[in-house]
Amino acid sequence: MSEIRHIKPAGEAIFKDRFTTKAKELLHPWSEGEKGKFGLVGLPHSKPSISHSGASLAPNAIRHAMLSYSTFSGEAERELTDRILDFGDVYMDPTDIIGNHHRLYEALSDVYHTEAAENWILLGGDHSVSYASIKAISEMHGSIGIIQFDAHHDLRNTEDGGPTNGTPFRRLLEDNIITGDQLVQIGIRDFTNAKAYHEYAKEQDIQVYTMADVKETGMRKILQHQVERLKQTFDSIYVSVDMDVLDQAFAPGCPAIGPGGMDSYTLLEGIHYLAACKEVKAMDIVEIDPTVDIRNMTSRVAAYVILQFMKGKS
Amino acid sequence: MSEIRHIKPAGEAIFKDRFTTKAKELLHPWSEGEKGKFGLVGLPHSKPSISHSGASLAPNAIRHAMLSYSTFSGEAERELTDRILDFGDVYMDPTDIIGNHHRLYEALSDVYHTEAAENWILLGGDHSVSYASIKAISEMHGSIGIIQFDAHHDLRNTEDGGPTNGTPFRRLLEDNIITGDQLVQIGIRDFTNAKAYHEYAKEQDIQVYTMADVKETGMRKILQHQVERLKQTFDSIYVSVDMDVLDQAFAPGCPAIGPGGMDSYTLLEGIHYLAACKEVKAMDIVEIDPTVDIRNMTSRVAAYVILQFMKGKS
Amino acid sequence: MSEIRHIKPAGEAIFKDRFTTKAKELLHPWSEGEKGKFGLVGLPHSKPSISHSGASLAPNAIRHAMLSYSTFSGEAERELTDRILDFGDVYMDPTDIIGNHHRLYEALSDVYHTEAAENWILLGGDHSVSYASIKAISEMHGSIGIIQFDAHHDLRNTEDGGPTNGTPFRRLLEDNIITGDQLVQIGIRDFTNAKAYHEYAKEQDIQVYTMADVKETGMRKILQHQVERLKQTFDSIYVSVDMDVLDQAFAPGCPAIGPGGMDSYTLLEGIHYLAACKEVKAMDIVEIDPTVDIRNMTSRVAAYVILQFMKGKS
Amino acid sequence: MSEIRHIKPAGEAIFKDRFTTKAKELLHPWSEGEKGKFGLVGLPHSKPSISHSGASLAPNAIRHAMLSYSTFSGEAERELTDRILDFGDVYMDPTDIIGNHHRLYEALSDVYHTEAAENWILLGGDHSVSYASIKAISEMHGSIGIIQFDAHHDLRNTEDGGPTNGTPFRRLLEDNIITGDQLVQIGIRDFTNAKAYHEYAKEQDIQVYTMADVKETGMRKILQHQVERLKQTFDSIYVSVDMDVLDQAFAPGCPAIGPGGMDSYTLLEGIHYLAACKEVKAMDIVEIDPTVDIRNMTSRVAAYVILQFMKGKS
Amino acid sequence: MSEIRHIKPAGEAIFKDRFTTKAKELLHPWSEGEKGKFGLVGLPHSKPSISHSGASLAPNAIRHAMLSYSTFSGEAERELTDRILDFGDVYMDPTDIIGNHHRLYEALSDVYHTEAAENWILLGGDHSVSYASIKAISEMHGSIGIIQFDAHHDLRNTEDGGPTNGTPFRRLLEDNIITGDQLVQIGIRDFTNAKAYHEYAKEQDIQVYTMADVKETGMRKILQHQVERLKQTFDSIYVSVDMDVLDQAFAPGCPAIGPGGMDSYTLLEGIHYLAACKEVKAMDIVEIDPTVDIRNMTSRVAAYVILQFMKGKS
Amino acid sequence: MSEIRHIKPAGEAIFKDRFTTKAKELLHPWSEGEKGKFGLVGLPHSKPSISHSGASLAPNAIRHAMLSYSTFSGEAERELTDRILDFGDVYMDPTDIIGNHHRLYEALSDVYHTEAAENWILLGGDHSVSYASIKAISEMHGSIGIIQFDAHHDLRNTEDGGPTNGTPFRRLLEDNIITGDQLVQIGIRDFTNAKAYHEYAKEQDIQVYTMADVKETGMRKILQHQVERLKQTFDSIYVSVDMDVLDQAFAPGCPAIGPGGMDSYTLLEGIHYLAACKEVKAMDIVEIDPTVDIRNMTSRVAAYVILQFMKGKS
Ligand SMILES: [Ca+2]
Ligand SMILES: [Ca+2]
Ligand SMILES: [Ca+2]
Ligand SMILES: [Ca+2]
Ligand SMILES: [Ca+2]
Ligand SMILES: [Ca+2]
Ligand SMILES: [Ca+2]
Ligand SMILES: [Ca+2]
Ligand SMILES: [Ca+2]
Ligand SMILES: [Ca+2]
Ligand SMILES: [Ca+2]
Ligand SMILES: [Ca+2]
Repeated sequence: MSEIRHIKPAGEAIFKDRFTTKAKELLHPWSEGEKGKFGLVGLPHSKPSISHSGASLAPNAIRHAMLSYSTFSGEAERELTDRILDFGDVYMDPTDIIGNHHRLYEALSDVYHTEAAENWILLGGDHSVSYASIKAISEMHGSIGIIQFDAHHDLRNTEDGGPTNGTPFRRLLEDNIITGDQLVQIGIRDFTNAKAYHEYAKEQDIQVYTMADVKETGMRKILQHQVERLKQTFDSIYVSVDMDVLDQAFAPGCPAIGPGGMDSYTLLEGIHYLAACKEVKAMDIVEIDPTVDIRNMTSRVAAYVILQFMKGKS
Repeated sequence: MSEIRHIKPAGEAIFKDRFTTKAKELLHPWSEGEKGKFGLVGLPHSKPSISHSGASLAPNAIRHAMLSYSTFSGEAERELTDRILDFGDVYMDPTDIIGNHHRLYEALSDVYHTEAAENWILLGGDHSVSYASIKAISEMHGSIGIIQFDAHHDLRNTEDGGPTNGTPFRRLLEDNIITGDQLVQIGIRDFTNAKAYHEYAKEQDIQVYTMADVKETGMRKILQHQVERLKQTFDSIYVSVDMDVLDQAFAPGCPAIGPGGMDSYTLLEGIHYLAACKEVKAMDIVEIDPTVDIRNMTSRVAAYVILQFMKGKS
Repeated sequence: MSEIRHIKPAGEAIFKDRFTTKAKELLHPWSEGEKGKFGLVGLPHSKPSISHSGASLAPNAIRHAMLSYSTFSGEAERELTDRILDFGDVYMDPTDIIGNHHRLYEALSDVYHTEAAENWILLGGDHSVSYASIKAISEMHGSIGIIQFDAHHDLRNTEDGGPTNGTPFRRLLEDNIITGDQLVQIGIRDFTNAKAYHEYAKEQDIQVYTMADVKETGMRKILQHQVERLKQTFDSIYVSVDMDVLDQAFAPGCPAIGPGGMDSYTLLEGIHYLAACKEVKAMDIVEIDPTVDIRNMTSRVAAYVILQFMKGKS
Repeated sequence: MSEIRHIKPAGEAIFKDRFTTKAKELLHPWSEGEKGKFGLVGLPHSKPSISHSGASLAPNAIRHAMLSYSTFSGEAERELTDRILDFGDVYMDPTDIIGNHHRLYEALSDVYHTEAAENWILLGGDHSVSYASIKAISEMHGSIGIIQFDAHHDLRNTEDGGPTNGTPFRRLLEDNIITGDQLVQIGIRDFTNAKAYHEYAKEQDIQVYTMADVKETGMRKILQHQVERLKQTFDSIYVSVDMDVLDQAFAPGCPAIGPGGMDSYTLLEGIHYLAACKEVKAMDIVEIDPTVDIRNMTSRVAAYVILQFMKGKS
Repeated sequence: MSEIRHIKPAGEAIFKDRFTTKAKELLHPWSEGEKGKFGLVGLPHSKPSISHSGASLAPNAIRHAMLSYSTFSGEAERELTDRILDFGDVYMDPTDIIGNHHRLYEALSDVYHTEAAENWILLGGDHSVSYASIKAISEMHGSIGIIQFDAHHDLRNTEDGGPTNGTPFRRLLEDNIITGDQLVQIGIRDFTNAKAYHEYAKEQDIQVYTMADVKETGMRKILQHQVERLKQTFDSIYVSVDMDVLDQAFAPGCPAIGPGGMDSYTLLEGIHYLAACKEVKAMDIVEIDPTVDIRNMTSRVAAYVILQFMKGKS
Repeated sequence: MSEIRHIKPAGEAIFKDRFTTKAKELLHPWSEGEKGKFGLVGLPHSKPSISHSGASLAPNAIRHAMLSYSTFSGEAERELTDRILDFGDVYMDPTDIIGNHHRLYEALSDVYHTEAAENWILLGGDHSVSYASIKAISEMHGSIGIIQFDAHHDLRNTEDGGPTNGTPFRRLLEDNIITGDQLVQIGIRDFTNAKAYHEYAKEQDIQVYTMADVKETGMRKILQHQVERLKQTFDSIYVSVDMDVLDQAFAPGCPAIGPGGMDSYTLLEGIHYLAACKEVKAMDIVEIDPTVDIRNMTSRVAAYVILQFMKGKS
């Protein structure tokens, strides 16, 4: 187009500072055979949600939010230069929900078996997607430790409503993919879970930290203790970030919002700490519904979580 | 509670003009054995939708919108006094979409077989619910005529994505529940349907009226002609109102909005005309997503459509 | 309705986890003669507000928000099982504001005299409702201590504009229902009150804690000191929660929002502490306008305040 | 401020095309003794409304919307040059609603007795303000004809809830300020009024035109007939524009919105026709709630109604 | 990626009906040397606007809205198959507005000189972009006729504020690029233009049709007459669509919205008629601000205008 | 207007508590020759912004937000009584951006040379306005220290896009108006700046504090240290508050929002501390876009910042 002056391709950001790399530029469609430090897969599944959820729109909202960030951490004086190999989104059939759970599992199995990436970033979707992801990764790597940030246990019985976003960890336990001591839950909130599931968590020996525990003990100390414990048994740790662990002021775009939650600074610190552990090899981010979000604030937090994760790994 | 002054039950409208009946007061939970002129069922199914839809929230949004209306038509000088027997909503499993289609069919079969009502009002949900409703009513009454108000043919192939909101009439044809000449489509819009489905409609001998036809020929004349034709073969006529037949200015809360559509006055006139035909025995209203609506405008149109229907029957 | 399959009553939440009790299920309409631990009354009065306010819609918004919570506190390992006896809302005449103040007083007098509940929860409405409530309760129990969370003194003169939401505590003082030393104000904010009322507060010996005091001294320590002081003179303590004590980030739906306020965690801790004192027998929650709220966040905080209150009492 | 370059007074529109007069510039605060063609008074009263209403904010919203218009009609090739003498807003006490009705009456009596303007424009507020306005003007000018554009009769009984926005014309009749034949109601909508009030209108010999009448007979013909009839008995005609006569697509900011109403072009034509009658001497515009409006669309219609009125008078 | 199951490229619409072509798929980035029936250029310039405008975001919003449409017209029984060669957007410097006007002119000169397309579609931006476009096309084709749909004359003097969106046609006249008889203005609205510019239009012999003219004479008849007249002198006709010619109910996302405008059906008919004239060779669409639009309604109208234009040319 | 009862001038707040002074009442249009403690100028320039910004609307939004505050600090037990001399807004040409930068500089030079105020408050606009302000004040007072609260360095190269809101401090350095050691940047955020500018900052010896530094070291300690350092060399300190230094939960109305930022309490404390230093003589507040703000929250923070500044000076 050399002879036409001033024209740029449609849809691309028209202003370009020559010294700035946008974090989104790190995303590259994966081509067969390629290997790298980070791989990313979108899991746009939210029809299993108990309440109406548009979380299927989150993977693109989060990718788009990465446009708002640069690749440079001044605090660490480090430039992120590793590409994120973007495997795209798993295809979701409009009407076959159970089939979609299986599709997620098959797709992620194939993805993980490519061994294309050292670290995986999975973008939900609602929390039901973690079942497929953890099942696939466990078959690949053997038993793993799991650190779940969440206001909820997600241990509901599966007879009422099937494999919803309230059941992923229950199903992992019932299908013997994990045992309770593999699972750490941080940020569990009062009046947000039924007694039966609190007791189930205790019976199963799940390690539970309420918001009061986080306030009293501190995020750093909890993570140190639990990572140490998990490392003794497991080679890999999987981090599952349900964004509703944050207070509604900091994550207004989750389906289940409420007060008394975590602030975003504390979560970001936690992610940074975890990423610095070499055992942490995968992280999912779930339960963001862009259709009810305000100025995409919650997707922006998610993009920042990804960058903290990458900073910890650099 | 007689000795406490000024207290009213919580949640009820606190102001009451003694001479005004709200249209919503016509709704009464049905009790076994009861019979009446109107029966209503909520079909809160929208997970089959191709694009993200909250139409499952519409049945209650529409019931609630009936609170905004009185029971009196000044134009007809007639008071609506017949109760609407409210059968409630069909239970939808959070994860079993195909099972939900079957549940809709079973529930509506049972409902229609009660013969509790002379006329039925069905509140979607997305347009996929019409399949179950028309199948159930056809088994009960034999072949019926169908008048569908819609910007879309809803004749998509069923291999791509299963029984979505784009396929109900295709599935009725392929399952031999109806033949094409039973179906009249009014308000079909340019650049809103694929050529393949336009041609399929012609092959199947479906009677199609575009928005241009509505503008040129007039709603009244189209309906006179088609009702006359259908009456010669069928005892019953079923009306299916996809609210996106309206222009986006009049129905801002449909998932698929656009310009160049019908104004609400024309639709309301059409419904009134049809209701006055004794062969018209059921009407569904679909494709309203309260989560994207503006001041519940689209649910208000739906409530008004119900009242026009009842006025025509009185 | 046994022979019809899959049908549920209209408008009720269709998904039900058999092990979860929603906090809203604790609400039961009071029947004469019933007694219990908690009683609740809605005070939907906001026409006295100086600026345009929809706080009259808050009682139902808060009741509705209780649907988002369960009845179980994992932190206290305690299930809330006590019913909340719901006395409904006080009838408000559309045009007779002064009469409405009187109606509130009469209704609450009658309510308190039923002695149906050990603890009372009152849902405004704007802050003007506290006058009626405190007057009625004082006549019943004798002098009481009052702990008011608020950004404002609410001690405006009553000549300018009558008994508005800016005057309840002034009127209580002028009508000799309380003296200043009975009243503790916490969270008073800079540039949010006139000098005249600051000085009036000092003259009347009201105990005032600004936001700076809360930051420096800490909520817990302030409450310990003041509860101790009040207990020496009064048998009962009344808590009045004006939600605008919170920073606008945490309570975006108050009429008078602003920066520099309390975070919700601090308020929730305070309520929990107070509820654990047996002298605290009533609490009102006021100044939430659901028409300007964002995703009902502020009503959600209110529902959580109620649950903390109940947890403290269990 | 001559030596400082580029500074303009704060808050004034900074761009100025030297050839354009904004319609708002026609507004001038009235000074005692001044006379002119148009007088305007704001009546910011909406606390009498049955449902929650922010119509008290409309007078300024409408004045502000006049900033969007020029003073020139290309269709009439006429420049509006007459000042609008702005008398300001009537003071409304925050808590004394009945007193406010009286204040409106006293203020408007005083205003009309100044004889400062040939034509009066009154900006509500809810429809309850018309009572005071018509009472005051009738005492001044003797019996008058009234043309009311409205979806509602506004003839509710006054025992239920006092002098609300549903009762102004009932109260005028019961207080013998008008008789039914003085009143013409245009745009009355189905299912929006109780039967009792339809019958009351007939008994009182009020001239009622439904939306169906408007569609069939045409606005122009209705007005010709009724103006002719009213002129034979009355020297003055008063026009009362309840903006909810418009369909919700055209007036999204009224408290009581709905489908099946008038389009704005038809209303504007009607106002222009009426203004051209010399007997028409006053017009009120009511029931706009800027807090629920979308991009001030409804206030923009109101400003346009004022300009059509002035064009008709020029 | 063949061995990984179910994965689709990120960000692409995941559901695909094999028989449906989305209108957006007709857009193809232009490569040097390519020729075709339609060329499209984005002109993202809105900083010249008198009032704050985000119209620079419209080219992509309109392209995106084409995703909502298919390529098939049932009314014409015609499939659109011609590609739209998308030249991208002209680069706009963040601070050099006058330079940007020049850049638009240079870029469009170059674009038009490629002779790559038979028909051009230009997407603003605000109306100031039409100056550059018409200047460039006139230099290429000689004098042309112009049909402008607009509520405004856009003939403001250029001393006050420079080359804003209020001046494009004035500047074309003053720079002798066109004479007044070349210009037809349709939809000019009362109280939306200054008298001085009405008179300037008359002096310059511009053909002006107000909204009243459109209502009385009809769109079709106006266009027939003017196209006939223009064809006698000019080989080419340029259509300029300022979306604010529509009533605010139909185009809520224009910076200058108001009542009393055109409905979308009338505009779409007009565009279809014009496109069928072989002399019409270019069309711009301007004054859509996606940041204030509601559900992208106004961009959807624009996309539909493009499709009507293409249908007329097929 | 003495003989008309109840009438108030249009547009003024109708309710008035006789003891309350609104902070906005401190604003008085400056008249030549007047002197005082505070002067204020609006700098409504946002067209230089890299991304679409409505910050030009902020000066009036902030002035308006001062209506929400009183003049009294209970914490300091001090009434603000000093007038703010309001110089109005600098005139901005709609199309001449570079000229506008120059206009800002000329206007502020003139303003500062009046020596009318001891302390200056400047309301942007985007951050590009600080260049003109600091240039003008430096020419007046000699070299000054600058404390910038910001998530960004604002040190972009000026070849790409000219003098945007990303370049003011770069341009001050390149034009030798300041040297790097004069500049302190507080609140710089990770992944929000390019590496090149981090390094440029270090080379230039700019004092940079990241958000992690603020969390670890504390605002108070950072300011003590830097103010001490600056005082040794410079007589004057200029404070530049880019509101996006706050977390998106606290300042939702900035163009560039994100998580991990400062809370409003910390910023307000910092401003109060700085204002108490006599060397601090001017403060600008920039990067608030009222068109994307939520309930004017961000403008409310700005108004509060002004009051803290004044409190520190009293
Ligand atoms: Ca979860
Ligand atoms: Ca959760
Ligand atoms: Ca359909
Ligand atoms: Ca449809
Ligand atoms: Ca208060
Ligand atoms: Ca308060
Ligand atoms: Ca009315
Ligand atoms: Ca009305
Ligand atoms: Ca224009
Ligand atoms: Ca225009
Ligand atoms: Ca900055
Ligand atoms: Ca910044």
